[in-house]
Amino acid sequence: MKALVYHGPGKQSWEEKERPKIQEETDAIVKITKTTICGTDLHIMKGDVSTVVDGRTLGHEGIGTIEETGKAVKNFRKGEKVLISCITSCGTCDYCKRGMYSHCEYGGWVLGNLIDGTQAEYVRIPFADTSLYHAPAGANEDALVMLSDVFPTGFECGVLNGAVKPGDNVAIVGAGPIGLAALLTARFYSPASIIMIDVDDERLKKARSLGATRVVNSVKEDAEARVKEMTEGRGVDTAIEAVGIPRTFELCESIVAPGGHIANIGVFGEKVDLHMERLWAQNITITTRLVDTVTTPMLLKSLEAGNLHPEALVTHHYQLGEILKAYDTFSHAKETKALKVVLDG
Amino acid sequence: MKALVYHGPGKQSWEEKERPKIQEETDAIVKITKTTICGTDLHIMKGDVSTVVDGRTLGHEGIGTIEETGKAVKNFRKGEKVLISCITSCGTCDYCKRGMYSHCEYGGWVLGNLIDGTQAEYVRIPFADTSLYHAPAGANEDALVMLSDVFPTGFECGVLNGAVKPGDNVAIVGAGPIGLAALLTARFYSPASIIMIDVDDERLKKARSLGATRVVNSVKEDAEARVKEMTEGRGVDTAIEAVGIPRTFELCESIVAPGGHIANIGVFGEKVDLHMERLWAQNITITTRLVDTVTTPMLLKSLEAGNLHPEALVTHHYQLGEILKAYDTFSHAKETKALKVVLDG
Amino acid sequence: MKALVYHGPGKQSWEEKERPKIQEETDAIVKITKTTICGTDLHIMKGDVSTVVDGRTLGHEGIGTIEETGKAVKNFRKGEKVLISCITSCGTCDYCKRGMYSHCEYGGWVLGNLIDGTQAEYVRIPFADTSLYHAPAGANEDALVMLSDVFPTGFECGVLNGAVKPGDNVAIVGAGPIGLAALLTARFYSPASIIMIDVDDERLKKARSLGATRVVNSVKEDAEARVKEMTEGRGVDTAIEAVGIPRTFELCESIVAPGGHIANIGVFGEKVDLHMERLWAQNITITTRLVDTVTTPMLLKSLEAGNLHPEALVTHHYQLGEILKAYDTFSHAKETKALKVVLDG
Amino acid sequence: MKALVYHGPGKQSWEEKERPKIQEETDAIVKITKTTICGTDLHIMKGDVSTVVDGRTLGHEGIGTIEETGKAVKNFRKGEKVLISCITSCGTCDYCKRGMYSHCEYGGWVLGNLIDGTQAEYVRIPFADTSLYHAPAGANEDALVMLSDVFPTGFECGVLNGAVKPGDNVAIVGAGPIGLAALLTARFYSPASIIMIDVDDERLKKARSLGATRVVNSVKEDAEARVKEMTEGRGVDTAIEAVGIPRTFELCESIVAPGGHIANIGVFGEKVDLHMERLWAQNITITTRLVDTVTTPMLLKSLEAGNLHPEALVTHHYQLGEILKAYDTFSHAKETKALKVVLDG
Repeated sequence: MKALVYHGPGKQSWEEKERPKIQEETDAIVKITKTTICGTDLHIMKGDVSTVVDGRTLGHEGIGTIEETGKAVKNFRKGEKVLISCITSCGTCDYCKRGMYSHCEYGGWVLGNLIDGTQAEYVRIPFADTSLYHAPAGANEDALVMLSDVFPTGFECGVLNGAVKPGDNVAIVGAGPIGLAALLTARFYSPASIIMIDVDDERLKKARSLGATRVVNSVKEDAEARVKEMTEGRGVDTAIEAVGIPRTFELCESIVAPGGHIANIGVFGEKVDLHMERLWAQNITITTRLVDTVTTPMLLKSLEAGNLHPEALVTHHYQLGEILKAYDTFSHAKETKALKVVLDG
Repeated sequence: MKALVYHGPGKQSWEEKERPKIQEETDAIVKITKTTICGTDLHIMKGDVSTVVDGRTLGHEGIGTIEETGKAVKNFRKGEKVLISCITSCGTCDYCKRGMYSHCEYGGWVLGNLIDGTQAEYVRIPFADTSLYHAPAGANEDALVMLSDVFPTGFECGVLNGAVKPGDNVAIVGAGPIGLAALLTARFYSPASIIMIDVDDERLKKARSLGATRVVNSVKEDAEARVKEMTEGRGVDTAIEAVGIPRTFELCESIVAPGGHIANIGVFGEKVDLHMERLWAQNITITTRLVDTVTTPMLLKSLEAGNLHPEALVTHHYQLGEILKAYDTFSHAKETKALKVVLDG
Repeated sequence: MKALVYHGPGKQSWEEKERPKIQEETDAIVKITKTTICGTDLHIMKGDVSTVVDGRTLGHEGIGTIEETGKAVKNFRKGEKVLISCITSCGTCDYCKRGMYSHCEYGGWVLGNLIDGTQAEYVRIPFADTSLYHAPAGANEDALVMLSDVFPTGFECGVLNGAVKPGDNVAIVGAGPIGLAALLTARFYSPASIIMIDVDDERLKKARSLGATRVVNSVKEDAEARVKEMTEGRGVDTAIEAVGIPRTFELCESIVAPGGHIANIGVFGEKVDLHMERLWAQNITITTRLVDTVTTPMLLKSLEAGNLHPEALVTHHYQLGEILKAYDTFSHAKETKALKVVLDG
Repeated sequence: MKALVYHGPGKQSWEEKERPKIQEETDAIVKITKTTICGTDLHIMKGDVSTVVDGRTLGHEGIGTIEETGKAVKNFRKGEKVLISCITSCGTCDYCKRGMYSHCEYGGWVLGNLIDGTQAEYVRIPFADTSLYHAPAGANEDALVMLSDVFPTGFECGVLNGAVKPGDNVAIVGAGPIGLAALLTARFYSPASIIMIDVDDERLKKARSLGATRVVNSVKEDAEARVKEMTEGRGVDTAIEAVGIPRTFELCESIVAPGGHIANIGVFGEKVDLHMERLWAQNITITTRLVDTVTTPMLLKSLEAGNLHPEALVTHHYQLGEILKAYDTFSHAKETKALKVVLDG
């Protein structure tokens, strides 16, 4: 089969590779019908993720068809359409029992990291019963592939951890795919306002079209002052960080109201300044989270019910064999206006 | 009457002052029977709290007897014994309705700060109906005065915000009065272990006697390594910060387990380093809080039921007239081994 | 002034009565601009509510303008537009501090019950600071008067107590004003489906137009069978009872899924059969509640944000002086298709 | 091997039976070291549980040693000491993912019901990875076997569902093993009082010795009146039903305070009267639950930490071969004063 293989920083190729086989009774082999590229894949390509070694097939998002299952797999059968979770969960360790699949002792984020991933014609999924989900009949497949990672991430790390409630004022810093997924899922809870903050007017325009009530371009305006103005001086009940750099985290610190939440989604490469000299008395809550994908069943139900339209984030399509071109498009998002790029298998 | 009056950094005197009068229909005048000194009072004396002006009577803790009430006060009558909350709550603003009395628009921490306080023979308490509590009949008065501030603070900011649960591993950094109050109230939830961390062996010995299951002297031992050892390498479910300096906050960051909580109680004068480069994926929750004293009714019930013995923190007694000596004892805690110093009116 | 006065079962008159005066420092006098009639008022007229005596002015819903305030009232001033809560809350008793205003030791449901109510030109509101709310500038006044009772009731007793979540299946039994208010506020949480059950096709049609995803006429169809069919045999996550008779409560018992909620809103005059022989092992939660109106601030924010349109329930308007005609219209809802009847002062 | 086999109502024998074998990759075979008898086993013997057929080995509680494991079992190895959960959980179905193991689509309560149970020398445990727990080194084995069913049941159905909190007043109706397990685990949360209600003075005496603060013999006293007296007329915050008959459930209805909880543990054979004509306005919560055993890891940690002493419920010991005598003792609890009878393998 063909797969996108990592060969060290800056080097990847779409090459022939042996088709994965069942290794454990709990494995399934999935034939990929759609996959996509994550910001994390770009980090890997820069050499930022030391756990990814030469020869690794990349990718942790995808949908497909069951090709084969191990003997202990009981929820899936050959030919069924499935959604692949970016997080592999054994379902039996202490963390899995607590719903913290991200820290699964036998799984977690392994696809396209510690084991071969989904940017290939076939992929082996360990612990299939707890790491795959049935695709709802007739579901939009572009929508579906967004549920591997970007929507559970925006929802769990941003919206759930941020405790968004009806009537709240919410700010989301960063209008990339994850920030927009947080926006769409924040709307599940009918906040009074969702203020989107970014440096790119195009992305803010997109945010507007997806339901942001206010937008702030933090290059052109003083974001803190603007947010305070929009909230009668109080700040927001929830500030969602969807960038991952000190400056945006500190912006969240300055716009959160007393009693409010800072919900981090961003992947950080360095420490940040936490202004405890002011925040110690502000009754705030800060949360971090690697997505657990425990809410995937709920997101699937919302998709089926027509309450969620994740396909709105898909800006480009390529054939699986054109994946190098897709990486190029995705990595030049500023020019190409790419949000999510889908690869059809 | 006599009162302890602040006259600028380092200057205070026990002097004659006019007895407070009812100013609003919702006020009460309380004759002080016991008061105590808080670490914050020492900060004020250093000039660290800019809102405290020359001429202010200090003190925000105390118990006493109702001397007089405004016309709109309906829950208290002359002669009744009361506990004074360190937080004044109007009971009607948005924050009060949400149980965030600390940020009350008309109150909050005002006693001994924005208005005259409790280190005096008489004190005026605004919003008496929501800022005073009836003393349970026959309650130990030393215990009671500990419920003005130190116990609600340790409990709300440390234990409740830290989400301590049966079976958990808990660490408390700082074995001063507030840390020890957190220890005693953490025991309400029967955690599997409570590890107390401090630099003073005397205080750790006290912590042991109050139910700490393990103690670590962080000067003599590598606290992070010791805590990891005690928790099979995972770290603690809840780390309670009860000191207020960057070093102890960072210790909490390094000992909290994935999925765990850092509950801050400490009063900070400077920012701290938040190691997001590691914590972003650790699914942790960090909380800050100025005590709301919403749990005072529960603490009073626990006191009455014999489930709480706050008097264990009282190390010294003085007459109210000896308050300068009491400040001296309290401010030399290292030598005097003082925890809480009670002044009898 | 004029007021609607109760003179025993079946007897009421629109008559001259002395204008209410400030009695306590915490009172306010409100000039009524709009009021409405509640199902409870019809119960009173039947003589079902023994606490209502001859001479009582009826009504517990309304909006108006502050005419006068007692000295201790600090949040309201003459001339301000206000929403009157159906629940009077002292803000200082144990129940109020816990957010259970319905059981306020000095208040609760007193208007038009234990003291004169809102179906008059003027009304005295005790504990004004905690029992009135500022009307948002420019708010639709028909919408606003719906927030006195019907919307907090549908939301708190039905939706909040029923723990409605994104992706859930919800059934609401009873498509009267309260059931429809539950429907509109259930939508705050984006459930996958909201199944409305009633015996009246007109009301079901209205429910459809307000967002019900499915409707069942329980006279024409087997409601239990239909709901099971719509939920793959499982039943609903939340069943909201908005009628108040044994038959509808038992319907809720038979359609709730394992792990689900039955949230009661209905006012009951008799006991019901609880089928514990089946339910004991079904992991369900049943809740009851007299509305607390603690969510009024949130509902006002949602109104302002355009996320809630309570005016959709208003079917008829009359002048305040035509109130007897309004009662007639409201009490013949079957023929008049009345939902909420608004009286303009 | 030998096993206790059910042969229809009233008929059971300790007889030779084929030793269980691995049937699925996820099975384990456990050699029983201790088992015990549950009230449910007595119901089975009366013919009340129609799912139990002739030839079934009884028992759903026990501890033992791993004898053999299926290929897909990864958390257990031959020779390890284990606790058997009374609830078998596949870990992969919708209910298991939500922590509702009791309703597992492939498991639930199957041991000694739908498949052969633990009152035998060997037992086959399906889904071993999620249905067994490692025994803590050095744990008291009598204590351990109490964690198969009785303690998770008392804790989850009674204490957790009853939302017991520090400072609360709690009543437990029924001082049998389950009620006493609720008592011991209610103490995890330091309520102000735990009132135990039963008809047997011996059991009430036992309850006293295990920490009940007050006891009421409901044959000799008016239980409702006594509880009201003990709670200043309000009733209890949580009433735990641990009997399973209409009379005791109704007692719970009459002693619960406004805002309180009725947490049902009892197994009911008939419906009960729910007094909605009074309760509709009382803001109460009623819960039912078949134990999920999701709290077993926490109970094990509490056992290890010395915070729980379940062995206090063990009144009798027999050798496994004497199991018929043990049933006799257990079923004549009134005379033998039996609480839990342990069988040593």
